[in-house]
Amino acid sequence: MKGFAMLGIGKVGWLEKDKPKAGPGDAVVRPLAVAPCTSDIHTVFEGALGEKSDIILGHEAVGEVVEVGSEVRDFKPGDRVVVPAITPDWKTLDIQRGFHQHSGGLLAGWKFSNIKDGVFGEYFHVNEADMNLAILPENIPLEAAAMFPDMVTTGLHGAELAEIGLGDTVAVLGIGPVGLMAVTGARLRGASRLIVVGTRPNCVEVAKAYGATDVVNYKVAPVEDQILELTGGQGVDAVIIAGGNSDILVSAVKMVKPGGNIGNINYFGEGETLPLPRLEWGSGMSHKTIRGGLTPGGRLRMEKLVSLYEYGRIDPAKLVTHVFEGFEHIEEALMLMKDKPKDLIKPVVLTK
Amino acid sequence: MKGFAMLGIGKVGWLEKDKPKAGPGDAVVRPLAVAPCTSDIHTVFEGALGEKSDIILGHEAVGEVVEVGSEVRDFKPGDRVVVPAITPDWKTLDIQRGFHQHSGGLLAGWKFSNIKDGVFGEYFHVNEADMNLAILPENIPLEAAAMFPDMVTTGLHGAELAEIGLGDTVAVLGIGPVGLMAVTGARLRGASRLIVVGTRPNCVEVAKAYGATDVVNYKVAPVEDQILELTGGQGVDAVIIAGGNSDILVSAVKMVKPGGNIGNINYFGEGETLPLPRLEWGSGMSHKTIRGGLTPGGRLRMEKLVSLYEYGRIDPAKLVTHVFEGFEHIEEALMLMKDKPKDLIKPVVLTK
Amino acid sequence: MKGFAMLGIGKVGWLEKDKPKAGPGDAVVRPLAVAPCTSDIHTVFEGALGEKSDIILGHEAVGEVVEVGSEVRDFKPGDRVVVPAITPDWKTLDIQRGFHQHSGGLLAGWKFSNIKDGVFGEYFHVNEADMNLAILPENIPLEAAAMFPDMVTTGLHGAELAEIGLGDTVAVLGIGPVGLMAVTGARLRGASRLIVVGTRPNCVEVAKAYGATDVVNYKVAPVEDQILELTGGQGVDAVIIAGGNSDILVSAVKMVKPGGNIGNINYFGEGETLPLPRLEWGSGMSHKTIRGGLTPGGRLRMEKLVSLYEYGRIDPAKLVTHVFEGFEHIEEALMLMKDKPKDLIKPVVLTK
Amino acid sequence: MKGFAMLGIGKVGWLEKDKPKAGPGDAVVRPLAVAPCTSDIHTVFEGALGEKSDIILGHEAVGEVVEVGSEVRDFKPGDRVVVPAITPDWKTLDIQRGFHQHSGGLLAGWKFSNIKDGVFGEYFHVNEADMNLAILPENIPLEAAAMFPDMVTTGLHGAELAEIGLGDTVAVLGIGPVGLMAVTGARLRGASRLIVVGTRPNCVEVAKAYGATDVVNYKVAPVEDQILELTGGQGVDAVIIAGGNSDILVSAVKMVKPGGNIGNINYFGEGETLPLPRLEWGSGMSHKTIRGGLTPGGRLRMEKLVSLYEYGRIDPAKLVTHVFEGFEHIEEALMLMKDKPKDLIKPVVLTK
Repeated sequence: MKGFAMLGIGKVGWLEKDKPKAGPGDAVVRPLAVAPCTSDIHTVFEGALGEKSDIILGHEAVGEVVEVGSEVRDFKPGDRVVVPAITPDWKTLDIQRGFHQHSGGLLAGWKFSNIKDGVFGEYFHVNEADMNLAILPENIPLEAAAMFPDMVTTGLHGAELAEIGLGDTVAVLGIGPVGLMAVTGARLRGASRLIVVGTRPNCVEVAKAYGATDVVNYKVAPVEDQILELTGGQGVDAVIIAGGNSDILVSAVKMVKPGGNIGNINYFGEGETLPLPRLEWGSGMSHKTIRGGLTPGGRLRMEKLVSLYEYGRIDPAKLVTHVFEGFEHIEEALMLMKDKPKDLIKPVVLTK
Repeated sequence: MKGFAMLGIGKVGWLEKDKPKAGPGDAVVRPLAVAPCTSDIHTVFEGALGEKSDIILGHEAVGEVVEVGSEVRDFKPGDRVVVPAITPDWKTLDIQRGFHQHSGGLLAGWKFSNIKDGVFGEYFHVNEADMNLAILPENIPLEAAAMFPDMVTTGLHGAELAEIGLGDTVAVLGIGPVGLMAVTGARLRGASRLIVVGTRPNCVEVAKAYGATDVVNYKVAPVEDQILELTGGQGVDAVIIAGGNSDILVSAVKMVKPGGNIGNINYFGEGETLPLPRLEWGSGMSHKTIRGGLTPGGRLRMEKLVSLYEYGRIDPAKLVTHVFEGFEHIEEALMLMKDKPKDLIKPVVLTK
Repeated sequence: MKGFAMLGIGKVGWLEKDKPKAGPGDAVVRPLAVAPCTSDIHTVFEGALGEKSDIILGHEAVGEVVEVGSEVRDFKPGDRVVVPAITPDWKTLDIQRGFHQHSGGLLAGWKFSNIKDGVFGEYFHVNEADMNLAILPENIPLEAAAMFPDMVTTGLHGAELAEIGLGDTVAVLGIGPVGLMAVTGARLRGASRLIVVGTRPNCVEVAKAYGATDVVNYKVAPVEDQILELTGGQGVDAVIIAGGNSDILVSAVKMVKPGGNIGNINYFGEGETLPLPRLEWGSGMSHKTIRGGLTPGGRLRMEKLVSLYEYGRIDPAKLVTHVFEGFEHIEEALMLMKDKPKDLIKPVVLTK
Repeated sequence: MKGFAMLGIGKVGWLEKDKPKAGPGDAVVRPLAVAPCTSDIHTVFEGALGEKSDIILGHEAVGEVVEVGSEVRDFKPGDRVVVPAITPDWKTLDIQRGFHQHSGGLLAGWKFSNIKDGVFGEYFHVNEADMNLAILPENIPLEAAAMFPDMVTTGLHGAELAEIGLGDTVAVLGIGPVGLMAVTGARLRGASRLIVVGTRPNCVEVAKAYGATDVVNYKVAPVEDQILELTGGQGVDAVIIAGGNSDILVSAVKMVKPGGNIGNINYFGEGETLPLPRLEWGSGMSHKTIRGGLTPGGRLRMEKLVSLYEYGRIDPAKLVTHVFEGFEHIEEALMLMKDKPKDLIKPVVLTK
């Protein structure tokens, strides 16, 4: 079969590989829609995961089951499924500690295009199908559904990490596709005022549709200064970091109230260390809590997202600005994520 | 001054009393809009709080400050304010335990018409004004604002007590005004499917507008049976009890999943004990957690509700079905709560 | 092989059964030490789990692995292991909800002597060995170790459910072996004053050794009255229910402060419903939270208990008052749990 | 009256000031025992709080009430009291947010020697006596009691911030007096293995008496390397930072498991920023949560500490290595904290 792969740092291309096989609990899935992710760009062009060669890229897909192992109970060939970006090994003790994202070690629930071939192949392998796949109902368009495996779940996790309370004032730093879903997440958890930081007009428009109430342009002045001014010097109850460079924690700590929460879903790609500002962190005593975490994955999470969609609570279709028809357009879609044209939020490739 | 009072169990009427005076930290407020509450009915006609005589009724009001004590910093005569039903004594150790609702003892944050004269007077007294009042912005209509002191905050507290997670399936038992705000609360916390139990057409309509996705009629069959059937035998992740008689916990325990949460905001007026069903509670081992609690009050809570309104997250005006103009209509409004005509959700009395 | 079984309600005896076989992920274990539990008594003589016939009893064992399936990575024949009473099926969605105790349905993590043959056989079967067994270090005596599978973990879970904070005043209702470990649990979580309810002299002695500071005799007066008096009318911050009949929740609610927590680890064997006292539960609004739950099991939990023992934090050996040598004494040991002689806390049977 | 004061950065000396007066809710207290703190050293000799002149130092005291305001209900002249280092203004909205430590702004619950004169005077002022003082029972020696206002509560808060679970492996970085109480705190919350980092023999001895099981010498190799080695590469479940320079967060993040907690009670005195290590923090996605916070204060907290002492759960007397008799020895005691002789843990000055 064919797959679009990282050949080495800075190099991508099509490869011919054997079609994967399903172990007893596993499934093989044919993608129906896939999406490239900024982290694919980090992986390939910044070497953020280190040197890798000939690994098929991609971790965002919905697809059709084509094969299941003998022990799979709940899925069968022909089923349309959502495939989470995070497909943990559920037979590790990390599960018992409550962190499936880190099953088998730090971030090791993230397998596609990281530990094994990703979803940009004609077929791909899914471990523990009963625990990691979710049925995709017929009435959800593929473009919208392709946002579930990573964009939606990661964005909502930002709101979870920030432990938002009813009526909180919340800042979301960064309104790329993940940040936009963090805006949705903050609204879903009951934020009142919802300040976003970003400049791209189409992102700003979607942010407002998702519930943003104020928009801050980081080009004008330091974002913490603007947000402190907007809040009468009080700062915000919670911050979700969904973008920014390695200094963004400094801004976040400065703009949050004592006792406030910072939830990070940004993938920091550079720098040996990330700085916290000492004084505004109360010299260590501010109770400004910092949580950063890889999104939950697995079946139940995807079922909950499907449920949120079906009951009209989320509208991820707004993220999809570019749709390609045909598997062969994967490279083109990926390059869009690299070049980030002005009107881009997120591309999706329909495979047929 | 005049006040509409409980004269004794089963008896109400107008009284003449001295105008209250503000202690150093206190305020005296003139009501602009008040609302009677089912709990006023419990208090007067069921004697739920025991024998009381000549106590002015009412605990839901927005008003205008007419006098403040010498130590009040943030309010002055002429300010329009929201007055929470719960006005704790903030100088008790219960505050330090984190339960302002129970400052000075069980439920003792509830002072109006319980421990002291309520808000159905020409003037009423508010303890610790800086801690218990919130500014009411000009752009919020009085009718909607009158829902903040109890209906909105109590309803949302139901969702807090039920610890709803993103994508949860939630049942709200009872869709009177508090239950309807619990529906809003469940939506605000990120419920996906939201099943309500109720029959009154106007309540059902508002429930749907607030986010209900399924409606169960308790007259048809036991609600737990219907809800288990709707959920394919799985039950719901969380239940909010916002109505029902003393057996409602039995239904709630039966319909919630193992590990699920039951949040109670119902005021149980009758019975020496409230039963839990032994087997469905896992013979004591089901991890079905039961939390029931008086709504938070105080200034910050009211400010958060105001903020939710101003940023368009809540729409309490839909609760108000009957508006009276003139203080003298309080009795009429109260009797509506007693008689519950078919088209009633909640009456408000504008005092001028 | 032989096994000591429930033949029917009220009837026990020895059976001959086939030796169990290990599936690919499973293990077969030979018991080294087993202990009968009051719940075995409930099961057999009260029919608490309904009619059952020819099911081998017992769910508390440490043993030696004699066979493992082909997929087992971390255990091999000859390993000495702790076998938790709760051995979940880790391939269910309930795991993803965070409740392994209820994997596959309410209480269904409890398999031994409930869903399948228990540990009172010459051999017994353990599902998902890598997830459900823990190594038993050589330096832990078998008698003490036999307390880990149920007594220790259940007792400590009581303290977890009661969410004890540093310096809390805690009441433990019932000081049988589980209640005694709840005393240890309360001490381990940082209780200061620790009031226990019980009368048996040897239990009282062990309770004091485990950290109890006050002892209340339930025969003298209602326990809630005594505990309220001991605490100057304030009540306690948390209650752990580890015994008592179906009315014990009434006492617990009465003795806990508003905002306090009740953790239940009692197995309620009788009654269709369990009553809560309406008024002391604040007519539904007291914030007295009620959590009852089956103990966690699985490997990590057992490893943590082993660790607590090895670092000298717990001393479960004090529970063991009767030691039998020889598998054939199981019946005798079980009958001790039924007859409860005065000097009994817990018997253990060493199988050789 | 006389007081020992900071005259300017780097300068200390005795001042003559007016005796403080009690406002309506306040008290004036005469110290019976006081202790100097490393933070006094930071304040004076490093100018950590900026330039200050003629402010009386000290925030650790137990004393005797000599005057109370007209509104004080629970204390009277002659009462022996514990005075927390943190005496919040309980009439601020920060209280309603749950962070009394930051009432009136970041760290502003810390008033003594920071915002107002400290406790190293013949008399000192306590705001809101009923909310901020606790009775000191006769049976607690003054030397031990002088550890409650800061050392004990701060150390225990480290364990709270690190959210330690039963059976967790915990590292405590730094075993000065606060770190030693953090060891107690970790034990009180149920840690099993408890690894401490430190070298001073008397501190190591007390650490072991308080529950430390392993001691790591930071002079030998990076502490994270040693702790990872001790734990077989797994790392610890939780870290409490109770000392170290501005790079200590790097070590803490490296040694904690994914999903683990870092609780900071260290007062970082230097550096504009504090670094986190990017890769070991999972590029932002490790779920290694970082919480740092000023200790809780106020009356209830002190009552809980008194209770822990009275029921034999804590033994702070072991911290006190040097006792001076006579108020005039305050300077000598303070200089001990600056010079840190080898046998010092903590000095106390008895005022008579």
